[in-house]
Amino acid sequence: MSDVAERAGVSLSTVSRALRGAPGVAPQVRENVERAAAELSYVVSRGASSLVTGRTGRVAVLVPFLQPWFFGVALAGMNTQMRSSGRDMLVYQVGDVDELDGCIRSLPLRSNVDAVVAIALDLDEKEIAQLDEIGVPVVFCSQFVECRPSVFIDNSAAAAAATRHLLNLGHTRIAYINSRDATGFSWSSRDRLRGYRQAMAAAGAEPLVVTERPGHEGGALATGRLLSLDVPPTAVFAESDDVAMGVLRVLRRSRLDVPEVVSVMGFDDSDTAELLDLTTMAQPVFDMGACAARLADRVIDAPDSEPEHVQLETRLVVRQSTSTPRSTRNLTS
Amino acid sequence: MSDVAERAGVSLSTVSRALRGAPGVAPQVRENVERAAAELSYVVSRGASSLVTGRTGRVAVLVPFLQPWFFGVALAGMNTQMRSSGRDMLVYQVGDVDELDGCIRSLPLRSNVDAVVAIALDLDEKEIAQLDEIGVPVVFCSQFVECRPSVFIDNSAAAAAATRHLLNLGHTRIAYINSRDATGFSWSSRDRLRGYRQAMAAAGAEPLVVTERPGHEGGALATGRLLSLDVPPTAVFAESDDVAMGVLRVLRRSRLDVPEVVSVMGFDDSDTAELLDLTTMAQPVFDMGACAARLADRVIDAPDSEPEHVQLETRLVVRQSTSTPRSTRNLTS
Repeated sequence: MSDVAERAGVSLSTVSRALRGAPGVAPQVRENVERAAAELSYVVSRGASSLVTGRTGRVAVLVPFLQPWFFGVALAGMNTQMRSSGRDMLVYQVGDVDELDGCIRSLPLRSNVDAVVAIALDLDEKEIAQLDEIGVPVVFCSQFVECRPSVFIDNSAAAAAATRHLLNLGHTRIAYINSRDATGFSWSSRDRLRGYRQAMAAAGAEPLVVTERPGHEGGALATGRLLSLDVPPTAVFAESDDVAMGVLRVLRRSRLDVPEVVSVMGFDDSDTAELLDLTTMAQPVFDMGACAARLADRVIDAPDSEPEHVQLETRLVVRQSTSTPRSTRNLTS
Repeated sequence: MSDVAERAGVSLSTVSRALRGAPGVAPQVRENVERAAAELSYVVSRGASSLVTGRTGRVAVLVPFLQPWFFGVALAGMNTQMRSSGRDMLVYQVGDVDELDGCIRSLPLRSNVDAVVAIALDLDEKEIAQLDEIGVPVVFCSQFVECRPSVFIDNSAAAAAATRHLLNLGHTRIAYINSRDATGFSWSSRDRLRGYRQAMAAAGAEPLVVTERPGHEGGALATGRLLSLDVPPTAVFAESDDVAMGVLRVLRRSRLDVPEVVSVMGFDDSDTAELLDLTTMAQPVFDMGACAARLADRVIDAPDSEPEHVQLETRLVVRQSTSTPRSTRNLTS
């Protein structure tokens, strides 16, 4: 380390702080130290460094699954922020509750981290208490948790706004497709359903809710049920874009034109929503990931500060899958 | 650590090996040790452990971007395999070549890892040499690299097979949409184009290649160009499903029916391909990630073994976006 200090023309302790990514080192100095270290192929052992500082420089990110687009986008936002604060990102896919439990138990055994970020894990109080046993601060991303740093959206208000858009277009027979997996309803699922019900009730319209598994298969099954009703709906609000994709697929195969015969509304604004011209309620997933990483920085650097809560804005993106209902158009034409 | 040994009824060295995830510990013994450690809330410091063993238990995964579906699926396969071999996964999004260079220089400074997996980074020889400077073994995922462990598909043969499917349906005017980003053509891009050209040449058909940026925007732009030709193609082969999505979108907006007027073929078999009934050449992305993690296990556990190369199979998935050309149907009807 003294070779690096000599080459960079700084003290040993500055080298140590610069290479650890500790605060209080001017960017120019850090750059000089890093260049000197690179020239000397100097390798800082995080292990050795953490024994001294008690910090590992690593944040563990827990996700239920890695495949869905949501997690890729959230991780991208998180990674961008973590790189700028010099932290490394360990990623654990914890799948179902069994694995979550195993993962939580094995985490401290497997690698010390300074903080844990839980993305859309949808934890209950018992599970949140288990996370406490890791002994490191936990940040929640895409779930509001009282007394913990968390970043989230107002799912209920957003779903109510989406429903009002359909009501304002003139629809009254608006179906809502709700998702439930093997472990039950997620928090966002419950909140979105509540928002839909509130907006329907406020307009004096009869709610029409079908519940299926999540994803496009669930959307396809739900659409089959809706198309078999005595009076099929003129608009369908799917709780996620993924579900809406299944709706669009069945309607396309049935040669039922969207939005001429049925309007379709999604929630999320995934890449695919844009491609398929799906009207949807957009949530800022990348920003949510970046914000969660900032909250992690804060709990690490200022462990005694009050837990911060950040509510991000959603916005309705109107595309070509929603329009006035056909009956209205017939009356006016 | 002696408390854990006593509670689990094993020797100190067994506890050490079990908690480090070292081989040669029976699963039942490992489980007992882990349970004892969990009960005692015993935290193994990877840092302290690595100073003794020289192993960190971590693998760094470099990806260009985290958003595209490809990387989520590959990371999911990798994570599943790494969990079973007890290794932790650090993820770095390295974006463009500048950032890659910075990342490579800062990697050894930031955290010691036992191996690096580069997913679809499309590195040239100079960049591969830079990776050597990290001083840890590198595994390549979705790129064939001589003298290094790598897992890949035969892009050229797969693209030739996809082209032959269109030729066999009776198409002769088959366009190919090729992608080039700011840094040039990727290896897979070149290989797929070569496969297309070979199959067209073998059939005596005239190649028709348009090059645009990657992704659905590139597909949309390329389709605009193809639809403006004197004689538009009857079939379009897009180098990726993402590009094909842009093609489908423009055709849908132009009310040109698929496959009645234009057949469309993709490459990859993303989730969206299935949703949109896109005929495509499927590559096993999840398996590729899992295989890369196994190759990483091998270079860590047997550093002197010969570099292993694994070529995974692709398969044509025929859906509803390809059919015989309209002219043929007219002649036979």
